[in-house]
Amino acid sequence: MLEGFFKPHSIAVIGASAHPEKLGAVVYNNIVGHKFRGKVYPVNVKGGKIGKTKIFSSVIEIPSKVDLAVIVIPALYVERVIRECGKKHIRSAVIISAGFGETGTEGKKREEKIVSVARASRVRLLGPNCLGIIVPRLKLNASFAEGLPQPGGVAVVSQSGAMAVAITDWALMIHIGFSALISLGNKSDIEEEELLNFFAHDQKTNVIVAYLESIKNGRKFLRTLKLVTQKKPVIILKPGKSMQAQVAVASHTGSLAGAYEVEKAHLEAAGAVVVDSLEELFMFTQTFEHAHTVKGKRVAVVTNAGGPGILATDALIGAGFFLATLSPETNKILKRKMPEAASLHNPIDVVGDAPASRYYAALSTVMGDKNVDAVIAILTHQYVTETEKIAKIIIQVSKKFKKPLFVSFIGGKGVGKGRTILVHHGIPEFSFPEQAVRALDASWKAKEAKSLTARFPDVEIKKGAHLVPLVGLKAETLLEKYIPFVLRSHISVSIPGALLQAKKIGYPVVAKVASASFLHKTESGFVRVNITSEKDLQRILLEWKKKISLKFKKGEGFVVQAYRPASLEVFLGSKRDLNFGPYLVCGVGGIFVEQLSGTRIFSLPQTVAQARQVLSTGILGAVLSSERGKYLPVTSLAKSIAGLSRMMIERADIAECDLNPVLVRPDGVYIPDVRILKIGA
Amino acid sequence: MLEGFFKPHSIAVIGASAHPEKLGAVVYNNIVGHKFRGKVYPVNVKGGKIGKTKIFSSVIEIPSKVDLAVIVIPALYVERVIRECGKKHIRSAVIISAGFGETGTEGKKREEKIVSVARASRVRLLGPNCLGIIVPRLKLNASFAEGLPQPGGVAVVSQSGAMAVAITDWALMIHIGFSALISLGNKSDIEEEELLNFFAHDQKTNVIVAYLESIKNGRKFLRTLKLVTQKKPVIILKPGKSMQAQVAVASHTGSLAGAYEVEKAHLEAAGAVVVDSLEELFMFTQTFEHAHTVKGKRVAVVTNAGGPGILATDALIGAGFFLATLSPETNKILKRKMPEAASLHNPIDVVGDAPASRYYAALSTVMGDKNVDAVIAILTHQYVTETEKIAKIIIQVSKKFKKPLFVSFIGGKGVGKGRTILVHHGIPEFSFPEQAVRALDASWKAKEAKSLTARFPDVEIKKGAHLVPLVGLKAETLLEKYIPFVLRSHISVSIPGALLQAKKIGYPVVAKVASASFLHKTESGFVRVNITSEKDLQRILLEWKKKISLKFKKGEGFVVQAYRPASLEVFLGSKRDLNFGPYLVCGVGGIFVEQLSGTRIFSLPQTVAQARQVLSTGILGAVLSSERGKYLPVTSLAKSIAGLSRMMIERADIAECDLNPVLVRPDGVYIPDVRILKIGA
Repeated sequence: MLEGFFKPHSIAVIGASAHPEKLGAVVYNNIVGHKFRGKVYPVNVKGGKIGKTKIFSSVIEIPSKVDLAVIVIPALYVERVIRECGKKHIRSAVIISAGFGETGTEGKKREEKIVSVARASRVRLLGPNCLGIIVPRLKLNASFAEGLPQPGGVAVVSQSGAMAVAITDWALMIHIGFSALISLGNKSDIEEEELLNFFAHDQKTNVIVAYLESIKNGRKFLRTLKLVTQKKPVIILKPGKSMQAQVAVASHTGSLAGAYEVEKAHLEAAGAVVVDSLEELFMFTQTFEHAHTVKGKRVAVVTNAGGPGILATDALIGAGFFLATLSPETNKILKRKMPEAASLHNPIDVVGDAPASRYYAALSTVMGDKNVDAVIAILTHQYVTETEKIAKIIIQVSKKFKKPLFVSFIGGKGVGKGRTILVHHGIPEFSFPEQAVRALDASWKAKEAKSLTARFPDVEIKKGAHLVPLVGLKAETLLEKYIPFVLRSHISVSIPGALLQAKKIGYPVVAKVASASFLHKTESGFVRVNITSEKDLQRILLEWKKKISLKFKKGEGFVVQAYRPASLEVFLGSKRDLNFGPYLVCGVGGIFVEQLSGTRIFSLPQTVAQARQVLSTGILGAVLSSERGKYLPVTSLAKSIAGLSRMMIERADIAECDLNPVLVRPDGVYIPDVRILKIGA
Repeated sequence: MLEGFFKPHSIAVIGASAHPEKLGAVVYNNIVGHKFRGKVYPVNVKGGKIGKTKIFSSVIEIPSKVDLAVIVIPALYVERVIRECGKKHIRSAVIISAGFGETGTEGKKREEKIVSVARASRVRLLGPNCLGIIVPRLKLNASFAEGLPQPGGVAVVSQSGAMAVAITDWALMIHIGFSALISLGNKSDIEEEELLNFFAHDQKTNVIVAYLESIKNGRKFLRTLKLVTQKKPVIILKPGKSMQAQVAVASHTGSLAGAYEVEKAHLEAAGAVVVDSLEELFMFTQTFEHAHTVKGKRVAVVTNAGGPGILATDALIGAGFFLATLSPETNKILKRKMPEAASLHNPIDVVGDAPASRYYAALSTVMGDKNVDAVIAILTHQYVTETEKIAKIIIQVSKKFKKPLFVSFIGGKGVGKGRTILVHHGIPEFSFPEQAVRALDASWKAKEAKSLTARFPDVEIKKGAHLVPLVGLKAETLLEKYIPFVLRSHISVSIPGALLQAKKIGYPVVAKVASASFLHKTESGFVRVNITSEKDLQRILLEWKKKISLKFKKGEGFVVQAYRPASLEVFLGSKRDLNFGPYLVCGVGGIFVEQLSGTRIFSLPQTVAQARQVLSTGILGAVLSSERGKYLPVTSLAKSIAGLSRMMIERADIAECDLNPVLVRPDGVYIPDVRILKIGA
């Protein structure tokens, strides 16, 4: 379907002009000037010539077949041109022209109109309001960006033209190659999900980089993303964290998780490497395009100075990597080949006076060691350092061993040429060892994405309806179908009734008042825990009765519940993102849950096995594996998460569910308080 | 005292040689080759000539006065040379030679010997085993590093020669200027504290950068550091985080705080900007040397592309800055001078086709706005962008307004020349807007350091003695002298005794067993809270008596305590760092305290006012200012911190004190459990 954009044999540039300052001329000259491997037809209603080339007054006039139309004319005339494209059987059009949805209501209507015309005319649209498209291996720059990057394996999808320009400009310096660069513009027709799918199957593409300000059809996008990341790494930069945080929904679970964090959790569940900065976008793109796949976490560091070796070690340990224990053979070889002053323990310090040959000996030995999964080579430019020669040796070693080799030449003037040599040969080079470690970490995550088990089944998402709170018995009965650990409330309107309930449950008990007048029971004082005798319970309820002096409405009354003091309080909350679907927030609980950090967000569904995995990491993981936590029933907690997940997937009418606290004790998990928000009819 | 090193008029290079491959020749040629503004005398026992210059066989032979000796000879002969320096009244010597403390016991002895000889001969030593010293404004490169950086305001003190080389090399590229670069080597005589003090008073130095693998006399260093940071920014990079974490003391408070974090807390309390990476060290050095001081947190962003503007905003908000609200006048001017498509709300988007004149109009307007404290200017290189012209305009605007202006030119090839122009004119330029924000944040911290109120009074630190645990009554009595909120334990060996105590306190009570056999009361089951009647208490104690079936030793028995269920549990712990002095660890408590994040570390002493400040930030700050936390007595909690601080400062015999939990309720603070480790005689 998208072949016309990525493999065109002939292009019509509508709006081409002989006046070089016109945008249409810039685009036309970009295509012709970079020697596009196909035919190019300038089109302009005014007719005339560009140099010796005739300008057609309409695409209809062009005598041969045209695969792609590039439109750079005022917005008002675009509709007519698209109709003509349809007549001419041009199936693909890039609309660079602005003046559509981005300008307000008028423009929005205009955009809707061209989309419906395009559908009827069977023309697919990229844009409007976009930078255009660049396909280096065809020598095609159908955009107004300067220069033509070299061909390679990186596909870029950008919702910002400027960002696509910046990436192109950076690529020209760093000599990275692209399979294609696409500016999405207003996404009136073609959007990110379709492009992702296209590049997943494009054999020329190894890495997909996406700058997305918004994502359409989030749930569907996640499903596609998951399939793509099992084949090749996908880097996503999504700006607007701070703005989304400001408008974050103020509801309970909502306040625990900013919209950005929720999206990030969903995208990461689908295997994307979500970056927070342009710096990471650039660094990781370079890494994924060039570095060998990381197979394990055992890293060797080779350096000619102690300090940077320590810094690299700090960063490695911090990111969860290990310093590789070198094999006895490696130790033997290093002992023979390194001078006495060298430190042969990983990090291997080849000492400040190391010539290229010593670097070669050390690097080739550790790269060949089966106990080493990746190597970081560090160089500081000291007075005898053969920096350029060492750069060449690194290229040699990297080619010989198919193992990730990350390089950091620290300094400025003295290491400049060495850096250039490395970069031109596709060796990931970083100004600082800490950056090399971040890239290694991203590489590891992209590898892990290939074995992710997340699924994104279709879920119905009701919008706009009003929300009905469900608490007490109704909520408990509903949740119990999914989680068998609900600590049931027993409601009585009379004190004798409550005493009878307490007797059945057995002391100690908890007493509460269930009433719409008291939403926060804890603050209102109508909660007492650990009541050990009937006498105490009676006294408490009598006191309360005096204080409230009101009649209970239907469903209200004194609540009696079994008392289960917890070893650990956890909170579980779930909610639906209207775009990406349901998610779960969990963490260590207690009454100050909103302020405690360590809150984590997960895309749903979660199976018991996945939930166990979740519970083995982060703060909860640390707590549950600690001396005091190891007797707690992790499986029951995992079952609770999976149960909550099942409810959110199956019941499209539930908007939100909060379980706080979930009491975790050696004898089991207990849920004393269930709050559900149902979507009303 | 150190003038001989930093303002020498004449230098003797001992070990100078005519053989260029010798280290002595490299150093001599560095001094002569860079045209040192003074006299240079080559010295070598072998005599001879270098070119036409006579080599003296000993410093004694030199006919004129010599201020500085630079020693590059085998370790064995250094002692004799220092004696000769003493005789010749040379008061300063840089020992580049290795073969001392770094090589083992023999070398260590040799080093001690030269130090005592130097003291007797009144010669101050830098090194041994160091790179040397560079003072650009004297055109002095008395080291074996390549090149001579330009003069400027940055003083570098490095414990690693390689790191000093890397910094020099970087400076040559980025055109940053130095007042001096010093390699510390083994720090046999001159160490960091003395140098810090020197540079604090050195009028040529604006910024001090220190790479320190260890710090001698931590407490004294903190005192000096505090004085220095009130005058000029100090950047410290201390590697070894991962190693220190591994050997972190396993005791209670110790496990909460790695040694690195403790040092960092101490250094930051004294106003240092502690960085974790070389990248930050480079970035912040450039910023502090060139940027104007940040006076407030209101930032304006000017960009020619929307995406990077959003990214900058994300980073600004994340770091605690605000988007400035522009003044009405600014709005008026912008409305007049910007095209319709421009976004005039901060971030100000001057649009992709912005020429240099439009950048000038936007930048000069916001730089002149009194509602704006700092400006970030962003540029992406689009097809019409006058990148180099805009770089020049930025320099012009930056000179006119004395306000911080941080720049990010995003891209690669197209922005290269523009970047070079900025860098050569001392404008802090960052490849990515997020980096500009990090630099702005560091700038803010350095400014804040000038008004820090931390003190570092001398504290006695006992080492090596054995530790005696103090619990129960003894610990409570001791702590009560400093904190009036101790919840006293009442010990009785008999049940009737305990009942009587409970009656005096009033129900509900807590019952425990105090016995050396049960260290962890909670796990052993001998703790019951919320006992509401004498009957219940009697039943519980009888049960326990059956279970234990042992006689209480002296000081042991049944413990009865008032029951105070807390709204918030906090933990407070304090310990002494043997180098830097006492510190305090605090955070949200509960039984899983070790795993909860949000733990914070503070240098002691802390006054009530300072403690209040501490309690207004981080997780505790969020909790205490939340809807549920705002009724809690912050002042009492601050008094507890100040009290604990006072105890740790006054009582050198207390190694450690743990208060966990500290119960915080609307009616006050209660400390039910005091554990102290005393240093035994």
